[in-house]
Amino acid sequence: MTEASAAAPTIVPVKLGDRSYDIVIGSGLIERAGREIADRTDAMRVAIVSDETVAGLHLERLTHSLNAAGVHVTPIIVAPGEKSKGFATLETVTNAILSARLERGDIVIAFGGGVIGDLAGFAAGIARRGMGFIQMPTSLLAQVDSSVGGKTGINTIHGKNLVGLFYQPQLVLADTDVLDTLSPREFRAGYAEVAKYGLIDRPDFFAWLEKNWRGIFEGGPERTEAIAVSCRSKADVVARDERETGDRALLNLGHTFGHALETATHYDSSRLVHGEAVAIGMVLAHQFSAKMNLASPDDAARVETHLRMVGLPTSIHEIPGDLPPAGRLMEYIAQDKKVARGALTFILTRGIGQSFIAKDVPASAVLSFLQEKQQR
Amino acid sequence: MTEASAAAPTIVPVKLGDRSYDIVIGSGLIERAGREIADRTDAMRVAIVSDETVAGLHLERLTHSLNAAGVHVTPIIVAPGEKSKGFATLETVTNAILSARLERGDIVIAFGGGVIGDLAGFAAGIARRGMGFIQMPTSLLAQVDSSVGGKTGINTIHGKNLVGLFYQPQLVLADTDVLDTLSPREFRAGYAEVAKYGLIDRPDFFAWLEKNWRGIFEGGPERTEAIAVSCRSKADVVARDERETGDRALLNLGHTFGHALETATHYDSSRLVHGEAVAIGMVLAHQFSAKMNLASPDDAARVETHLRMVGLPTSIHEIPGDLPPAGRLMEYIAQDKKVARGALTFILTRGIGQSFIAKDVPASAVLSFLQEKQQR
Repeated sequence: MTEASAAAPTIVPVKLGDRSYDIVIGSGLIERAGREIADRTDAMRVAIVSDETVAGLHLERLTHSLNAAGVHVTPIIVAPGEKSKGFATLETVTNAILSARLERGDIVIAFGGGVIGDLAGFAAGIARRGMGFIQMPTSLLAQVDSSVGGKTGINTIHGKNLVGLFYQPQLVLADTDVLDTLSPREFRAGYAEVAKYGLIDRPDFFAWLEKNWRGIFEGGPERTEAIAVSCRSKADVVARDERETGDRALLNLGHTFGHALETATHYDSSRLVHGEAVAIGMVLAHQFSAKMNLASPDDAARVETHLRMVGLPTSIHEIPGDLPPAGRLMEYIAQDKKVARGALTFILTRGIGQSFIAKDVPASAVLSFLQEKQQR
Repeated sequence: MTEASAAAPTIVPVKLGDRSYDIVIGSGLIERAGREIADRTDAMRVAIVSDETVAGLHLERLTHSLNAAGVHVTPIIVAPGEKSKGFATLETVTNAILSARLERGDIVIAFGGGVIGDLAGFAAGIARRGMGFIQMPTSLLAQVDSSVGGKTGINTIHGKNLVGLFYQPQLVLADTDVLDTLSPREFRAGYAEVAKYGLIDRPDFFAWLEKNWRGIFEGGPERTEAIAVSCRSKADVVARDERETGDRALLNLGHTFGHALETATHYDSSRLVHGEAVAIGMVLAHQFSAKMNLASPDDAARVETHLRMVGLPTSIHEIPGDLPPAGRLMEYIAQDKKVARGALTFILTRGIGQSFIAKDVPASAVLSFLQEKQQR
């Protein structure tokens, strides 16, 4: 698509006082990145942090666009996948930023999926005690979730994302064209987080997704619309509670069960990827809410039906290979970092789009629910 | 000294909006730390990051005080010295904090000098994306400078403190008793930073130091007074400009020349420690200002006389061993991270207590000044 024919992008503002920024969503943004960045910043130099896969597909066009705008580019390419999210790669990337002689007003661009955004954002936040930072998410999951809101981090032997920063980007450029290069499985996984925003507090959006999901998968105008609504939803929550001391925890709908399943499958992406874990986790959260007489079983069935329709797994029995017993899953849940002072906090729901933060959920009820689910 | 006989501590507030905190300065604060922390926070667990030297002298008393207040303590002890300020030790300390199962509301205490404060503050800022953090500085330099203002960081192959965070503590407890365990050389090095506050913008304080420095070195009431004025000076600057986009650069008086000398001596503390480099650097800054006809040579002489009186070095010729030629020192100065867009920014002065940020200082003038100094 040429620049002239590109539709005007959609802009979603994230309102965080003096750390406010725009999310720009649309077609052809890689080709326009140089001009967008030159118009909005004083940066003379950028470091582009990317992985081998994304760099192979898109780096040349991005570099060309930046050079054409007079911006010097240093690429910093890491291996794809979760294993790059550790202290070793953080040190490598941070040193590469310093090697490139970037000054504080210059910019680190995270150009990739969630792993790259988390890693590059963390490095940008600590190099020279904080560089300029721009997110250019290339997966659906990163465009609707991880690139928005400023969470960055790496994994350690103690767990995922336990080390990191709240570090807001100064701009998010989400080029919707790149989504065509994703595998169907990767696209679906990102869709789980799109559906999540409907389930948290936008029942109309969930109903719209039930009708329009095919357009989203096929790349119609519904796709940009769904990404924009998702970003707006997340931006609203983040603006209310940047550092997750309250409402932001709603974004963890489906994630407590989901993280336990990811731990149980040793983060083996051939068995389960994050979005799939969240899909199963959201169905479980609705079923558990129904079991606790908080929500109607019909709502749980409606969630399950929609996610199954788009091709996502909705039951733990769809995960290939053996799972540990329910008791072990409970241990993983208890180790989750969202546990405050030992009390079990869960995101539960009163129905579609009526999620809430439930504190002091009895562990025994969760355990017996998981035992039931495993037997079926 | 028993608790009952301790004089009331001096409290200096640091005003940073919702990140405001108190600096508590006085005698017997290690013994009172448990109560101070229990009164001011909800923390149930703390990790004390310290080095072998400080831990050997003071850790038992601090642990006892915290335990007596019902706070669980995990000690994290690293090797003393600048070599602990790197990625490897940062990873070790961060993992030890996570191993200790501290939650977000729990606290990391930096218990040591500048190295420990910078390292522990950085680890506290990234573990769980930000833990509670308290500074308990045990060197004069840390009490009057590095523990105040939230700069944390580590060194890399590219230079000192190039990786880190602005991360404010929620409390600083400066026990003046521990200063009696410092070597005279270490105490003098810290004194250079005390004198710096007078030279920046408090001419009356500098005059007071000229009269009262013996009481400070001997541990009289002048010591607490000097520490309090220093902290107040730094707190004022930091409150005006937390992230060093303007006035905070004044705190670098003497540091541009000083850092170049530290680099030239390979940070070999047997030749030069930071405070000594700052002392020489402040004299050079005053002499260079006089040479540029900004200040009177008498003021430069007055600074030199006072620093020499307390036993600090005031000339590059006092540094043992060979120094590189002036041209190489200029390169170190140009590499300093305070260079913005290639222009040479220096803290110069119009006289005692009249420092200012000079931009676009001609490198040629600095070079010929350094050449003169080396010939003498």
